[in-house]
Amino acid sequence: MEEQFMKRAIRLARKGIGYTNPNPVVGAVIVKGGRVIGEGFHEAYGGLHAERNAFKNCTEDPQGADLYVTLEPCCHYGKTPPCTEAIMEHGIRRVYVGNMDPNPKVAGRGVQILREHGIQVETGIMEEECRKINDIFFHYISHETPYVALKYAMTLDGKIAVKTGESKWITGQEAREHVHTLRHKYAAILAGIGTVLCDDPMLNARVRGGNNPVRVICDSRLRIPLSSKIVQSAKVIPTIVAACERTKKAEKLEELGCRVLICPEKKGQLDLMELFRALRKEKIDSVLVEGGADINDSVIRTGAVKKIYTYVAPKLFGGKQSRSPVEGEGIERISDAVMLDGPEITKIGEDLLLEYEVR
Amino acid sequence: MEEQFMKRAIRLARKGIGYTNPNPVVGAVIVKGGRVIGEGFHEAYGGLHAERNAFKNCTEDPQGADLYVTLEPCCHYGKTPPCTEAIMEHGIRRVYVGNMDPNPKVAGRGVQILREHGIQVETGIMEEECRKINDIFFHYISHETPYVALKYAMTLDGKIAVKTGESKWITGQEAREHVHTLRHKYAAILAGIGTVLCDDPMLNARVRGGNNPVRVICDSRLRIPLSSKIVQSAKVIPTIVAACERTKKAEKLEELGCRVLICPEKKGQLDLMELFRALRKEKIDSVLVEGGADINDSVIRTGAVKKIYTYVAPKLFGGKQSRSPVEGEGIERISDAVMLDGPEITKIGEDLLLEYEVR
Repeated sequence: MEEQFMKRAIRLARKGIGYTNPNPVVGAVIVKGGRVIGEGFHEAYGGLHAERNAFKNCTEDPQGADLYVTLEPCCHYGKTPPCTEAIMEHGIRRVYVGNMDPNPKVAGRGVQILREHGIQVETGIMEEECRKINDIFFHYISHETPYVALKYAMTLDGKIAVKTGESKWITGQEAREHVHTLRHKYAAILAGIGTVLCDDPMLNARVRGGNNPVRVICDSRLRIPLSSKIVQSAKVIPTIVAACERTKKAEKLEELGCRVLICPEKKGQLDLMELFRALRKEKIDSVLVEGGADINDSVIRTGAVKKIYTYVAPKLFGGKQSRSPVEGEGIERISDAVMLDGPEITKIGEDLLLEYEVR
Repeated sequence: MEEQFMKRAIRLARKGIGYTNPNPVVGAVIVKGGRVIGEGFHEAYGGLHAERNAFKNCTEDPQGADLYVTLEPCCHYGKTPPCTEAIMEHGIRRVYVGNMDPNPKVAGRGVQILREHGIQVETGIMEEECRKINDIFFHYISHETPYVALKYAMTLDGKIAVKTGESKWITGQEAREHVHTLRHKYAAILAGIGTVLCDDPMLNARVRGGNNPVRVICDSRLRIPLSSKIVQSAKVIPTIVAACERTKKAEKLEELGCRVLICPEKKGQLDLMELFRALRKEKIDSVLVEGGADINDSVIRTGAVKKIYTYVAPKLFGGKQSRSPVEGEGIERISDAVMLDGPEITKIGEDLLLEYEVR
């Protein structure tokens, strides 16, 4: 019973993915006499919390009802008043909670307040499933870098292009469309200047009703062409160009709508860890890296990467000169390998998506 | 009902994998009054056929019973007399057949003879499943090359070694043990001289009761050390060294138990297609290629490869200098890629095995 309603709350919560950053996604279901009488989710950053949406949608008086909520109700004044108050006002009898809120402003006090007011609270209902839908939020709230994920598409023999450099397309149309739903989940997309010069991409999320992530281009020497699609669309889609020094070109980029962010240099390259810290300070909770082979290696070396999305196409290219998804310096000894957990496997058209967590 | 007994016959047939080459694997189940009264499979090359083993194991008189057999019963004199005769002698009433035998000596005549003798025959029962267990045989019987498969183990970023060349180990112990069951299925294993010089492997099938495949080393200039494990064990495990010309060393290799096979040269390299044809003439029905990156590319370019086994380890190495599973020349245009169907996915320990068929 409990699982049935919590599953429903999780399904609701998922609808908020990509819209609530840097807030968590949350779902809530109100049950009376075994029937759902109201449900809701946190729909967008700054909007009503899941519990309040559920109350708003109630078809009956929730007095004496049970509440299922994927995350501990908040008890502090943020953009909205505390949900604990709403729960008490509506006379809820019992609350089932998925995860405790890791936000130090809540962290168990939400549950404590409810109990102090005579409301029965059960915690840890489908805890792992509830945590999974908020992997980004849980990382963000307790780290000084965003949740960083790496995405690449390769052939079964580990190539991202043929030897001439041709790379369109490795995967089929369905997988390429799927990338847009991934992008939508992340607050920012990061690419290297190499990718911009080579492919002139838009790096937007072409999902109906989806949010476009902030585009972040690593461009230490500000080589990005003013005529590139990214610069030309910077007034519509937020765009950060990260460089090591401010040159004259910075002003022109700013006139066209880009933000130029100056980051320190490290070993002749832009210090990616500093860039991640700067993005975190701007409440960017998550970054999807869609770099070339070299930037992928640099990003992995920072240790900030938490997740790898690998699309595998049912093709073989061969070729010593054909590029591989992660190049750069690489490691010297197998024992130094970055170790992964997983995968979750999804067949998308004729391709395969393998999702691993960095251990 | 029919499917239930055919499934049982397929399970029995599988027990013969690796022991019957170049014969097919076959399973047979005899059913009377809804009960299995006898079953058997083709256990080894030269041994009794599945039908005869099933009759031998009957616990009751099979007069009037039904026979389920994964492959069309033979009707010619080979190492054993025709199974059609045994079926008639035992008074079988009805025969359910999985696949028709593609062997031109049979090819429908087995079924025809049974019908001519008043036995009811149903064909095409679980045809696709029955075909799958004999992928090697079906290829072998109709081609002038063996069924060739390629196997490699790589990291999630497509590396088979770190930049220093260290490659032990990419995958975990369970996956490495699984390779031995693969080898057991194939009549021969092919590796390049590079692998021998670098790793000094045994290339045997360490499976309890398993057959060792013939080891075939591509060694155009006969560089294989007389002291290598492969040469030293050549009197126990059949070993073919394929070279482009007979040098003095050939005699020494032969004294130590190797067979030296001379193949034509093509573009400065051993002509692999000719090697495959020569192996086929010796009734080697299947070859598992466990080459290095260059030989893998050459083998793929022959067009003889039918299957790819890719073990994916949950690791990232990075490194432009780290080797990739298929190198060599490679293709120039994405439209020239070798296209694959699949995969079948198996989790083996922490690794993943992806099996694709070449389209």
